[in-house]
Amino acid sequence: MISVVLIGTGNVSTKLQQVFSQSEEVHLSGVHGRKKRTGTILPSGLEIQEISQIDKNADIIMIATADDAIAYVKMELGNPNALVVHTAGSVPLEALAPIKRRGVFYPLQTLSADLEVDFTALPLCLECSQEKDRKLLQQLAESISTSVHWISSSERERLHLAAVFTNNFVNHMILQAEKICEEYDLPKELLHPLLDETVVKAKKQGAYKAQTGPAVRGDLSVIAKHIELLQDAARQKLYKTITASIQNEYESQL
Amino acid sequence: MISVVLIGTGNVSTKLQQVFSQSEEVHLSGVHGRKKRTGTILPSGLEIQEISQIDKNADIIMIATADDAIAYVKMELGNPNALVVHTAGSVPLEALAPIKRRGVFYPLQTLSADLEVDFTALPLCLECSQEKDRKLLQQLAESISTSVHWISSSERERLHLAAVFTNNFVNHMILQAEKICEEYDLPKELLHPLLDETVVKAKKQGAYKAQTGPAVRGDLSVIAKHIELLQDAARQKLYKTITASIQNEYESQL
Repeated sequence: MISVVLIGTGNVSTKLQQVFSQSEEVHLSGVHGRKKRTGTILPSGLEIQEISQIDKNADIIMIATADDAIAYVKMELGNPNALVVHTAGSVPLEALAPIKRRGVFYPLQTLSADLEVDFTALPLCLECSQEKDRKLLQQLAESISTSVHWISSSERERLHLAAVFTNNFVNHMILQAEKICEEYDLPKELLHPLLDETVVKAKKQGAYKAQTGPAVRGDLSVIAKHIELLQDAARQKLYKTITASIQNEYESQL
Repeated sequence: MISVVLIGTGNVSTKLQQVFSQSEEVHLSGVHGRKKRTGTILPSGLEIQEISQIDKNADIIMIATADDAIAYVKMELGNPNALVVHTAGSVPLEALAPIKRRGVFYPLQTLSADLEVDFTALPLCLECSQEKDRKLLQQLAESISTSVHWISSSERERLHLAAVFTNNFVNHMILQAEKICEEYDLPKELLHPLLDETVVKAKKQGAYKAQTGPAVRGDLSVIAKHIELLQDAARQKLYKTITASIQNEYESQL
């Protein structure tokens, strides 16, 4: 049984509370957070009012706060016996120094407190400062997922950048499509089968081979028409920049 | 039984051959194309060598060629008795004039000859010049899909633009993520659960609400770090432009 204390009350912490509470190998011994959030699955009596009251003999203290709160929490924690890990994609392991037993437990997923996510296939990216803590961290990760990976801080930084393209930027493309539909009273659900297939195809063939459309075909009349339709200068710039990037990628073929 | 002649041998035509061949309400009476492509599901004996040999009494002649071949095929066809439709997203109905009975049969999907697609939920966007042809076109569409929509040329032009964001541009974002993984020997499959969830979340919540990440949070230090990591000027420009577009969208919140 691994005893875990969670710090934070945002989406990541709320999701981890839910999944740790359901794991038979984890004992969630407390949760500390500045903002109050009523988690329906969180058993009552777990709330820790002050960081100083955290059980220093817990196996793992997990800082699942916003990135910029990690440094503050670290100072408050001092140097506990427990292994202290954070859950951030873009914060290096060394940000937890001088805590001796430090580590990272980064779930590579977009987590929302109110949306169900399948944790069993969710990639967990691990890192720790002391060789002897590897087993403990691996055990915790395997108690909730089958996709466990040891990833260095510099690799994780790059994975996080790739995740920004995969999630943040893909979502922004979907937003642009939704807005065009809304402007012309077209139901955005018309695009959902295409969106689903886009992802299926990219995963199956790889995105390089899956690319289609006016940019890769070099269809200048359609591109010009689209730029005209977009009207707004900012959206035109977005369209032009991505089109140029696609053309740049496939340059030798045009 | 609706008799259909298909013109074209690309992905759209090949897919439509397959699905029409399987429909009990459609008789695929022939296929004409300049390029030879061996469709495994296409029954032999259907190939039409010359446009002049096309059965002028077919109910529907469907031009499923590249956009820029539509004008050429139209000239070759003359003015047949059949309803003549094209399958292009960005070509107006009037491009088929002076053919009297003209129409559009636009499948809003990315079709590959060798990938299976669920046609029953695939949106078909219809348009025709003569009121009396609506029933025939509707009947053909309903024989293969439950998602049938009457969409004008100007609506379809906008839907096609939205489809470019949904498919072409989303795919290019996935490519960028794959490239970052490849450059650092990280398995790109690590990103697949995130990609799946991104689409699920955008469809469920709408993309506006689903947006997360450094751009919408205004996390300038992560953004600066990412731009540094990208190195190449073209990729930096892509990252900066999309980040600015996200920030522009949520400006009042920052």
